Amino acid sequence: MSLDPLRPDLVPFLQEYLPTVRSSSDSRPFVTLTYAQSLDARISLGPGIRTAISDMETKVMTHYLRYHHAGILVGAGTALADDPGLNCKWPGRDEQGQDNDEVRKDEPLSLHSPTPIIIDPSQKWRFTGSKMQQLFAAGEGKPPIVVVERLPEAPEKDVRYLVASRDAATGQFDWPWLLGALKSQFQLDSVMVEGGACVIKALLARPDVVDSLVVTVGSTYLGAGGVAVSPATPVKLSDVSWWRGKRDSIMAARLTQQSM
Amino acid sequence: MSLDPLRPDLVPFLQEYLPTVRSSSDSRPFVTLTYAQSLDARISLGPGIRTAISDMETKVMTHYLRYHHAGILVGAGTALADDPGLNCKWPGRDEQGQDNDEVRKDEPLSLHSPTPIIIDPSQKWRFTGSKMQQLFAAGEGKPPIVVVERLPEAPEKDVRYLVASRDAATGQFDWPWLLGALKSQFQLDSVMVEGGACVIKALLARPDVVDSLVVTVGSTYLGAGGVAVSPATPVKLSDVSWWRGKRDSIMAARLTQQSM
Ligand SMILES: NC(=O)c1ccc[n+]([C@@H]2O[C@H](COP(=O)([O-])OP(=O)(O)OC[C@H]3O[C@@H](n4cnc5c(N)ncnc54)[C@H](OP(=O)(O)O)[C@@H]3O)[C@@H](O)[C@H]2O)c1
Ligand SMILES: NC(=O)c1ccc[n+]([C@@H]2O[C@H](COP(=O)([O-])OP(=O)(O)OC[C@H]3O[C@@H](n4cnc5c(N)ncnc54)[C@H](OP(=O)(O)O)[C@@H]3O)[C@@H](O)[C@H]2O)c1
Repeated sequence: MSLDPLRPDLVPFLQEYLPTVRSSSDSRPFVTLTYAQSLDARISLGPGIRTAISDMETKVMTHYLRYHHAGILVGAGTALADDPGLNCKWPGRDEQGQDNDEVRKDEPLSLHSPTPIIIDPSQKWRFTGSKMQQLFAAGEGKPPIVVVERLPEAPEKDVRYLVASRDAATGQFDWPWLLGALKSQFQLDSVMVEGGACVIKALLARPDVVDSLVVTVGSTYLGAGGVAVSPATPVKLSDVSWWRGKRDSIMAARLTQQSM
Repeated sequence: MSLDPLRPDLVPFLQEYLPTVRSSSDSRPFVTLTYAQSLDARISLGPGIRTAISDMETKVMTHYLRYHHAGILVGAGTALADDPGLNCKWPGRDEQGQDNDEVRKDEPLSLHSPTPIIIDPSQKWRFTGSKMQQLFAAGEGKPPIVVVERLPEAPEKDVRYLVASRDAATGQFDWPWLLGALKSQFQLDSVMVEGGACVIKALLARPDVVDSLVVTVGSTYLGAGGVAVSPATPVKLSDVSWWRGKRDSIMAARLTQQSM
């Protein structure tokens, strides 16, 4: 897949939602929650069905955001369903070919690609044979950190593991701890969370750890059979702003602490 | 409730989605399907909970659309839950006080308000005591047409009835017939459908009768307990265009015949 040029007005639109340099005393990375949904809040046509929702015009934004993050996090469900590459293909140039960011055009894609982080407590996903491994082998992506409940008996080559426990009652990770460990143990000072439904739902309820929210709304209905995203309870947003594309719109905002 | 001024760029944005003069041979009215939803595709916080989703900036658009339609249709669920007035408060003037449409400022609100149509097969809703009745009594709205499965034994004063049968297997109305009857029996050549979930879901599956779709997306999550809108199967859209507000975006489009 080659990328379309980035629409120049996306740069100022995203500016205030991008990771900022945190003080070294900050124990957690900057976290951006981002996904693309249909009008009826579906992120795929069904479990395991890879679904194009956003237009080429907004797809490039994902790579622009990846360029600005040190880590990119998805759940095992997404890793298994989509076999995603999770690298960054954005070249650091705008459509006029002008540099509009630090330009790294002569460098391998792996250098400015984020580190993939796979939430895979029960070790269902394998790096071996994945698109991620192919990209790593070709110098076009980084190898992943896999978040597990216990270390595997046969660790995979090139994979780093982070052992994290889940709350017995809720099944949830201790997100502040988990994200803190990504910063302290793996030096990731910004993490972009791309899905899937299970991870998004968990993090929409966590204004304490999520710094920015970027949602692409595609002009289609995926229907009741699709994988839906809706948090368990209402979530209010602040600092809202919208970008208007041809077929998609993008909303950027911050989660607020109070509930409805 | 007094209305905010209409943002002037909404007028050209909505232009191509408004009812057009149909040839007299056309047996059905022009149908606009319109609603406001949260990001997670909820139209209310829960059954029976009246919920503000859209901003004042986009709320006025509803009245602008009502101004351009002869009828306004909702399901009994909405009539019971929200006790909606369904009249038109848009004065026919833009924010500079300039006329930007036929101006009817000296006329009573009832004159340019659409005729309410309530889909109430099992006669759960009563006009008597409703907000609609109050508005009608005050000269600020029209009395309704109620769509029923059989004529009531004690018809309500000022209410007109349309008897329509439902398919025994699907529970669905024959929409082309029902809409055709609104035109032939009640001279309604344009109908705006405002909800609720049950009616919207039924009509999202009917590109044969829906001419325009106008969806306001509010920047909030109402959560899993909310009343959700998602059609049974995927729906593709064409002629898509977006309007960008401060807190809401609006998508206008047409339903396409083919499925995904
Ligand atoms: N449109 C988009 O932007 C987008 C982006 C990404 C994915 N997707 C779609 O999303 C779908 C996958 O979503 P999904 O919900 O099935 O999968 P997911 O969120 O990617 O991963 C779910 C799995 O990851 C683990 N997990 C994730 N979050 C957890 C949490 N908070 N606490 C504990 N464990 C957690 C669990 O593993 P265990 O079951 O082993 O405990 C869980 O089953 C796919 O259809 C994919 O195409 C869409
Ligand atoms: N945000 C918005 O734009 C918006 C707009 C309107 C309403 N709402 C919300 O929507 C909710 C109400 O939705 P709802 O789904 O409960 O109610 P609804 O769609 O307004 O009405 C449902 C009832 O109307 C009858 N009906 C409607 N469509 C039918 C069809 N296609 N075939 C046969 N019968 C049909 C049925 O009556 P019987 O059960 O008697 O058969 C059904 O129970 C409320 O919470 C309201 O606040 C939101």
